[in-house]
Amino acid sequence: MNERTTLVTDLNVFANFRPTLPSTYTDSPFIFLGNIDPTLQRSVLTQVKAKPKAVGLDTMNYWIERTPAELKETLKHTQILMINDDETRQLTGEHNLTRAAKMIFKMGPKTLVIKRGEHGALMVHDRFLFSVPAFPLETVNDPTGAGDSFAGGFMGYLASQKNVTEQSLRRAMVYGSVLGSFCVEKFGVERLTRLTRSEISARARLFSRLTAFQL
Amino acid sequence: MNERTTLVTDLNVFANFRPTLPSTYTDSPFIFLGNIDPTLQRSVLTQVKAKPKAVGLDTMNYWIERTPAELKETLKHTQILMINDDETRQLTGEHNLTRAAKMIFKMGPKTLVIKRGEHGALMVHDRFLFSVPAFPLETVNDPTGAGDSFAGGFMGYLASQKNVTEQSLRRAMVYGSVLGSFCVEKFGVERLTRLTRSEISARARLFSRLTAFQL
Repeated sequence: MNERTTLVTDLNVFANFRPTLPSTYTDSPFIFLGNIDPTLQRSVLTQVKAKPKAVGLDTMNYWIERTPAELKETLKHTQILMINDDETRQLTGEHNLTRAAKMIFKMGPKTLVIKRGEHGALMVHDRFLFSVPAFPLETVNDPTGAGDSFAGGFMGYLASQKNVTEQSLRRAMVYGSVLGSFCVEKFGVERLTRLTRSEISARARLFSRLTAFQL
Repeated sequence: MNERTTLVTDLNVFANFRPTLPSTYTDSPFIFLGNIDPTLQRSVLTQVKAKPKAVGLDTMNYWIERTPAELKETLKHTQILMINDDETRQLTGEHNLTRAAKMIFKMGPKTLVIKRGEHGALMVHDRFLFSVPAFPLETVNDPTGAGDSFAGGFMGYLASQKNVTEQSLRRAMVYGSVLGSFCVEKFGVERLTRLTRSEISARARLFSRLTAFQL
């Protein structure tokens, strides 16, 4: 949790931070609310003019403990919640993740993405489950930013599609994992800044090979 | 490691244990050597008359530390090694699992199955990688025996096939996970003793749904 602790320290320094969307962003159909104060997350959302096709949200123990009412209000406007195992349990008070997911569905999101770092990610949707492994890498240099890279790949893929369907959500999980796997190969954003489309496609095909079987 | 600690205590009590194969077992083409003293594992293997199609082996920290030479001798006669992350690292002295796998391939096995409990299992073969998640269950009553159930499902599936191929190894991973998932639903072998073929097939199809995506 070191990275996240640092984040909160930064937020305290910037206590007067009031995010303002550039005007070209206010009609975005796909919104991802990064891990900040849920009141600020909602203030971003109110700046979006048209009803978004999908709103994703990341949060953490700090907000779950200190601003639970604000977080639950923001969750009402969220379709996709991306958190880890511990956060899922803390938010619901339920240890079992499939039961916890059902409680989260009542809070607003109908899609829960449980991020598990080196163990991949699990999507619990109210009509299906989907699991994707982490990509087995020879070298992991820096896990910082893997979760945000996952979210970026996930939301970016969804935004490239006309509609949010079961198939596009499954593929979004794969592209999220692809971006997360590139992120950790080098320090900071070093690997991501020189990443090409063809590298992304090639690794997505490797995920397919990694998980495919015929009964 | 509580279960495994208990096992070793039992083995010390039965220090004179000398496993003898019933005569009807000595022509088995598929052999699984459970987690016991590697010298005893090899003594089982020498009782098998024909050259087996595949030998699987489970081991643990106790044997890796105390009988490394004996273990390495037994590994020379093993095709499929089934251990966990820590055991893989301990056996090779290499933290990275894909690099560790390459070291294991030089010891004998050409297939490494890394068992990860609630995080599923990873197969590292010298020509491919295959990952299978654990089945997300509403209730886990007792994890005891999950690894052995996995091994049983895995080897049992292989034994049902004519040849060991990439596809049969992938499916063996799935059937191993299916059996492991049923094992943990109830205490001891309670669930396994009343398990039916159709329940096994149905859950294998659920694994397919859990992991399938189309790029």
